[in-house]
Amino acid sequence: MSDLGHRLVELLGAAHVLEGTDSPDDAHDESLAVAHGTPAFVVRPASTADVVGIVAACRESGTPIVARGSGTGLSGGANAPDGAVVVCFDRLTDVTIDDVDHVAVVGPGVTLAQLDTAAREHGLTYPVRPGEQSASLGGTVATNAGGMHAVRYGVTRAHVLGLEAVLVDGTVVRAGGRLAKVSSGYDVVQLLTGSEGTLALVTAVVVRLQPFLPVRRTVLAPFPDLPTTTAAVARVVGSGLAPALCEYLDDPTMEAICAAADLSLGIPDDVRAEADAYLVVELVGRRAERVDEDLAELGELLTALGAPDVYALPEGSARRLVEAREQTFWTIKARGADEIVDVVVPRSAMAEFIGRSREIGAAYGSRVLGCGHAGDGNVHFAVFQPDPDALESTLHEILAAGVALGGAVSGEHGVGRAKAAALAELGDPGALAVMRRVRAALDPDGLLNPGCGVTPT
Amino acid sequence: MSDLGHRLVELLGAAHVLEGTDSPDDAHDESLAVAHGTPAFVVRPASTADVVGIVAACRESGTPIVARGSGTGLSGGANAPDGAVVVCFDRLTDVTIDDVDHVAVVGPGVTLAQLDTAAREHGLTYPVRPGEQSASLGGTVATNAGGMHAVRYGVTRAHVLGLEAVLVDGTVVRAGGRLAKVSSGYDVVQLLTGSEGTLALVTAVVVRLQPFLPVRRTVLAPFPDLPTTTAAVARVVGSGLAPALCEYLDDPTMEAICAAADLSLGIPDDVRAEADAYLVVELVGRRAERVDEDLAELGELLTALGAPDVYALPEGSARRLVEAREQTFWTIKARGADEIVDVVVPRSAMAEFIGRSREIGAAYGSRVLGCGHAGDGNVHFAVFQPDPDALESTLHEILAAGVALGGAVSGEHGVGRAKAAALAELGDPGALAVMRRVRAALDPDGLLNPGCGVTPT
Repeated sequence: MSDLGHRLVELLGAAHVLEGTDSPDDAHDESLAVAHGTPAFVVRPASTADVVGIVAACRESGTPIVARGSGTGLSGGANAPDGAVVVCFDRLTDVTIDDVDHVAVVGPGVTLAQLDTAAREHGLTYPVRPGEQSASLGGTVATNAGGMHAVRYGVTRAHVLGLEAVLVDGTVVRAGGRLAKVSSGYDVVQLLTGSEGTLALVTAVVVRLQPFLPVRRTVLAPFPDLPTTTAAVARVVGSGLAPALCEYLDDPTMEAICAAADLSLGIPDDVRAEADAYLVVELVGRRAERVDEDLAELGELLTALGAPDVYALPEGSARRLVEAREQTFWTIKARGADEIVDVVVPRSAMAEFIGRSREIGAAYGSRVLGCGHAGDGNVHFAVFQPDPDALESTLHEILAAGVALGGAVSGEHGVGRAKAAALAELGDPGALAVMRRVRAALDPDGLLNPGCGVTPT
Repeated sequence: MSDLGHRLVELLGAAHVLEGTDSPDDAHDESLAVAHGTPAFVVRPASTADVVGIVAACRESGTPIVARGSGTGLSGGANAPDGAVVVCFDRLTDVTIDDVDHVAVVGPGVTLAQLDTAAREHGLTYPVRPGEQSASLGGTVATNAGGMHAVRYGVTRAHVLGLEAVLVDGTVVRAGGRLAKVSSGYDVVQLLTGSEGTLALVTAVVVRLQPFLPVRRTVLAPFPDLPTTTAAVARVVGSGLAPALCEYLDDPTMEAICAAADLSLGIPDDVRAEADAYLVVELVGRRAERVDEDLAELGELLTALGAPDVYALPEGSARRLVEAREQTFWTIKARGADEIVDVVVPRSAMAEFIGRSREIGAAYGSRVLGCGHAGDGNVHFAVFQPDPDALESTLHEILAAGVALGGAVSGEHGVGRAKAAALAELGDPGALAVMRRVRAALDPDGLLNPGCGVTPT
């Protein structure tokens, strides 16, 4: 074992320092097509002081540091370079619920499922649902994870009120707190949120909780074509009905997730045959009679906007459909998708973006299917293209099309290693200049997650 | 006229370059006790290119640059040092409302009143109301302004989706956009929001708009003491009724604003005599019958929480009371307040903070009155103390008490020049280290609003 290894063992105990070769699953996340190396060590701190010690050992030996949550990321943000130290946060799992301030103070290793379960005991909820409830708080803060409920509640960024984090020089930063608002200098909380372990290692998080709304009703509306579908989205979001989710799925994706979940939604064959896409909209509230009344209004609105019929789903079917939608990644992975795409565009540009993406796919012989958080203009594609060059061209042109329409290379998965080159090429040069200067100012030697996020030049 | 002056005239035309001595009102904001100097020039750019040119001229002559909106700030953020160039944005006033994406693209010189009027024509609203509707978008972005509606809609930061800004080296930054979410590198939009003109000059803003909810109902509840009042706030916010405002006022402040507005709220004398504080809560919605039903529920809740009676205010009285509350600063200024305080604490600590602040005031013979955005834990005091040393001690101890309770030196007014020393003393050293490195990385020569915000060391 190297000097670094001995020092880490001295710090954490042998049980919490593994050789990278002994822990291959900790070397990568769930991304489909992002390379990774073999880390030197995988370590498990139990305190902020442990993290300070790890950072000191790595800094003095010039060793790259990769923070890792549950490993459910999809952009390779936790994919370790050869020789790195991977820092796993699964021993930092404290959860404190504060039902006066409506916040939770949590360790970065706490999962979304654990946090929401704890909050629900107080009549509260943590509504961020990026699709994988085993995701860790630390990981979702790193990627600024989104998910289906963002259309009503906002993404992770909207919920993070405070952070404790360790800089590469060992400085412990405590920013924000149990505060609903603050205007006391630069927002270090927001700077670190979404920074993918490239500026600091997060050791504690204060998040906002929401009152839990017990009543939920879900409708499914088939639409004849995508422009009609996406035009309806703006009207649904603008109605004031405040949907808790507003998802679109194209017909092949709907077929795939229903098949994978063995789910029949009772839509007649002739309606399915005419449908090119579907909207799924969920309303929530405190009183059943109001939500039912709103549901009727929503149904009339969707019909007026071009849905030939609107299906109010029974509670069990609705839950299973939403769960199946959350599992889309695993479904399309099982069907052999070669890569996935996460792009955000202005809601008004969604139909054009999806249309262009289909044309790009067709030009390269790639199959491009998708679904997405329509209320947010956030589109997810599965791309089927076995040829690596054709795959890369398809992906690149889709990202470029999104950016050309006023979008960004990632809506919620993060840049990671998957999109570092795309961000450097397609991002605004001025914004990239700010990012590079900030990164260099906080990590001058480039030890924090090198290769992830904004490139040095 | 100096070389700098000639260069600015060449760039902007003589009509848009004033000598600082000829434009004294542009040298400061509305802060009560913050010094300012005499700027060399006050300039009015009409385009982003103009701003790039101004910055180049200032950089080459080593001249400090102070951005100025409407001058309604309360922390001296726009108070100019001697010899500075003040950049006024009142010629950058484009407003474009996009009712599909529910955003507005606005010049920094647009006022909140102008933006909200434009949005309302599309059934939308910009709900940020810091109390002064003549505030500019640029100024509210610089200070991350809050206000009464933040309890429901969030502060300025929650609404800013995109920015165009000019760095001191002339780089034009375009970050974010008409996007509901994004995870594509560090959030430059959030970094610049609240940075008080110390990192860049903002030349355009993309803000989120909200559906306008036409029905509003307001209740006023007297409470016997402050702990009962603030304990009620958590229950109101946690009820799921989603109030659009939840304000507390102590009895002297209520008396003062009602007198200033010549407003009688019909509260019997014996109730007033027993009241130490009041809550004002507003509910909004799409349907009158629901809001009325919620209002009844809110009334029962407030009664159960200790309010001896609850008064549903007629629409006219409610509007006048809210307007009077928005004018509190002018009212207490007219009554001779020597300074104001804006502190945010956890909602749960509000009663203790107010109690301690009253004790601090008593110890120094200072009169400390107040009101605040109770739903957010954001407390505003007026301090009456003619002796400068006793005033300074009172203010300093109140800020320190707030920070000791987990709060921050400013909830919504910003650091400006008023609180730069307090932030440096009371802020978290780690968070301050991050702020200083970021400031130095983006403005290495310290030309952008020197003296405002985080201090260099």
